[in-house]
Amino acid sequence: MRQSLLFTKTKKTAPKDEVANNARLLLQAGFINKEMAGVYSYLPLGLRVIERIKQIVREEMDAVGGQELIMTSLQKKELWEVTDRWSDENVDVWFKSELKNGTEVGFGWSHEEPITQMMKEYIHSYKDLPAFVYQFQTKLRNELRAKSGIMRGREFVMKDMYSYTIDPVQHQAFYDETIAAYNRVFERVGLGDDTFVTFASGGAFTEFSHEFQTITDAGEDVIYINREKNIAINEEVMNEKTLTELGVTADELEKVKTAEVGNIFNFGTKKCEELGLFFTDAEGNQVPVHLGSYGIGITRLMGVAVEHFSDEKGMVWPKSIAPYDVHLVSLCSDEADAAKADALYKELKAAGIEVLYDDRDARAGQKFADADLIGIPQRVVISGRTLKNEEVELKARTAEEATMVSLSALISALTE
Amino acid sequence: MRQSLLFTKTKKTAPKDEVANNARLLLQAGFINKEMAGVYSYLPLGLRVIERIKQIVREEMDAVGGQELIMTSLQKKELWEVTDRWSDENVDVWFKSELKNGTEVGFGWSHEEPITQMMKEYIHSYKDLPAFVYQFQTKLRNELRAKSGIMRGREFVMKDMYSYTIDPVQHQAFYDETIAAYNRVFERVGLGDDTFVTFASGGAFTEFSHEFQTITDAGEDVIYINREKNIAINEEVMNEKTLTELGVTADELEKVKTAEVGNIFNFGTKKCEELGLFFTDAEGNQVPVHLGSYGIGITRLMGVAVEHFSDEKGMVWPKSIAPYDVHLVSLCSDEADAAKADALYKELKAAGIEVLYDDRDARAGQKFADADLIGIPQRVVISGRTLKNEEVELKARTAEEATMVSLSALISALTE
Repeated sequence: MRQSLLFTKTKKTAPKDEVANNARLLLQAGFINKEMAGVYSYLPLGLRVIERIKQIVREEMDAVGGQELIMTSLQKKELWEVTDRWSDENVDVWFKSELKNGTEVGFGWSHEEPITQMMKEYIHSYKDLPAFVYQFQTKLRNELRAKSGIMRGREFVMKDMYSYTIDPVQHQAFYDETIAAYNRVFERVGLGDDTFVTFASGGAFTEFSHEFQTITDAGEDVIYINREKNIAINEEVMNEKTLTELGVTADELEKVKTAEVGNIFNFGTKKCEELGLFFTDAEGNQVPVHLGSYGIGITRLMGVAVEHFSDEKGMVWPKSIAPYDVHLVSLCSDEADAAKADALYKELKAAGIEVLYDDRDARAGQKFADADLIGIPQRVVISGRTLKNEEVELKARTAEEATMVSLSALISALTE
Repeated sequence: MRQSLLFTKTKKTAPKDEVANNARLLLQAGFINKEMAGVYSYLPLGLRVIERIKQIVREEMDAVGGQELIMTSLQKKELWEVTDRWSDENVDVWFKSELKNGTEVGFGWSHEEPITQMMKEYIHSYKDLPAFVYQFQTKLRNELRAKSGIMRGREFVMKDMYSYTIDPVQHQAFYDETIAAYNRVFERVGLGDDTFVTFASGGAFTEFSHEFQTITDAGEDVIYINREKNIAINEEVMNEKTLTELGVTADELEKVKTAEVGNIFNFGTKKCEELGLFFTDAEGNQVPVHLGSYGIGITRLMGVAVEHFSDEKGMVWPKSIAPYDVHLVSLCSDEADAAKADALYKELKAAGIEVLYDDRDARAGQKFADADLIGIPQRVVISGRTLKNEEVELKARTAEEATMVSLSALISALTE
């Protein structure tokens, strides 16, 4: 992409009315636009990050047998009344409206109910199980406060997966596979070392639930970790009983601030019993299906990555989710050199490298500051000076010093 | 995809409570699920069709310089009041709700207002123009009636593009380019021959607007066409004055039922004046920006394709938007033959062909009926009988007769 054509521009300063660091940086760099508190549009650079995160998650969900679909935002009152999750007393994040004929409708904040209802069309026999489905859905949640930027929005993108299984054994096998898949996701987005499967308060069916928590000062949670034993405990279940069960002592644990980036949850057979999702087992008995749900906040994960990696100059994107692989910055002033910069841009693209090409008529200082703010992993500077030796200057976003690389060796330097 | 693992199944009959043929077929084949009237989820086969249509549209919008972004569903009352499009008297399709603090919010049914408001951050000078942006957005519209299946839903996917230009000349140039891009889209999805750029009633700035209308009995519109002169006129502007202007006589025109699959619209400078989007021209004057908007209903287009191509046996997908390229139907009864079918499945996938592999334990009659219903363009049957000569049976969905093809020649037969 030629930066001269990109309609968004960086701003000199971060917006004053925004408290969350992730939103301040993303707004300043033109990745997002604020529509109202907790409601952000995603502009070209931001959308590219979302799509890269989604693709990683999609690959890992497909790998465990997930089948992608997309449910609706509009929700039926009668369905959610069955499970007692319609009333505002029980669920305080509903947005509700009504059809022209007065029928009340809600806007989806979660999708266990409609997916389970839909599954009644397809699950009848043990031969129809297991079934694993997932979606990337724009969820709407009427949050009382929204001050965490894209980490907790009133409108946000979530990957939610649901498992329908025969019994606790089949459920547990998939649950364990999903923990491994989630670990691969966080590893691939560059947050693996600081993301922990964390024991948290359970539901009606299990003593604990599992959250995936990533260390960041911007987080809303506090957990206690032991990196060596790979144990993490949410503050809410941090007590003697938990410590004993997990075989760890309080003084072995480190207290850290974290953000929840994923959660997995066992509904047992309760939800399917309520909604009437039963199957006929091999002996001809009617048996309720086991349900598990597995969430990853896609836009939240993007926000956590900004918080986790940014420095005083701006954002620092991990390679796997950066909007572009390379920021090619041209400081060429004469036409012949500019033509060489254009040629290099085309050459990099032809090699399958995603390039943001700063071909703007702007000062070097502004271009460098913008490159640091936008945070693409590799910066390549081409100028009359570097071209004297048929070279360019290559610098990783996180490196102190740049190195000179010959034009002919650049692609291998970038892809090695 | 192994059909034995696909969680959706075909149904023996179409649902009784559904009047629209497109929804009847899509429901029966397991492409969609009905959540309520005019509100459908997209299951794996249906989502694949949507994604293929989106990718075609994306490529053509990118080719004219469109930059993809994604706006929000949640909308601010104050913004839409500026242009007098908040009140239910003026716009009768709003879904509305409120935040916890009582602030009214709406759910996006169109996005001229928020995109233009956002553009005020980025458009200041003539150097910032033109700018073309687009999105694939799930629109919510509180339609009074919803009886056309996925052709007119209360929740649907739309591609909407917006052009911001300096003057009528720059506007018209992009407008003409977009007409060409839209024609390429409809050509690529297989509806080119029966889709017409149609003169329809204009807005405040132009005598006519342009709609893209596709011939189908399921359509809600009536237009008059002359294929040779490539002229199409919406019934609503069919009068002597229009005929004279377009140089055509009434008896040269054929009356057809159509569905609107795209529209393009010139807002002139009105919307930008109302919302305060001005730029500084080369002489230092403050000038309002010209706005054009360009829509294609993605899910509607999918519905029209079903209506347009289906026959008494089921759906008939054009190659470019079919959920899979090939339906490989195995009738192998012994293990050695089944292993050959598995091997062929892997071989086709390795060749980059998208395959739905019917490896189910089911009768031949059911497999053939399902293949016809689902409507994948090519059907390949492999069985003990065909394997005697190291062959398979190849049949296009629309062909009467199958032909025998040797295993070794199949890939070239499918990709030629």
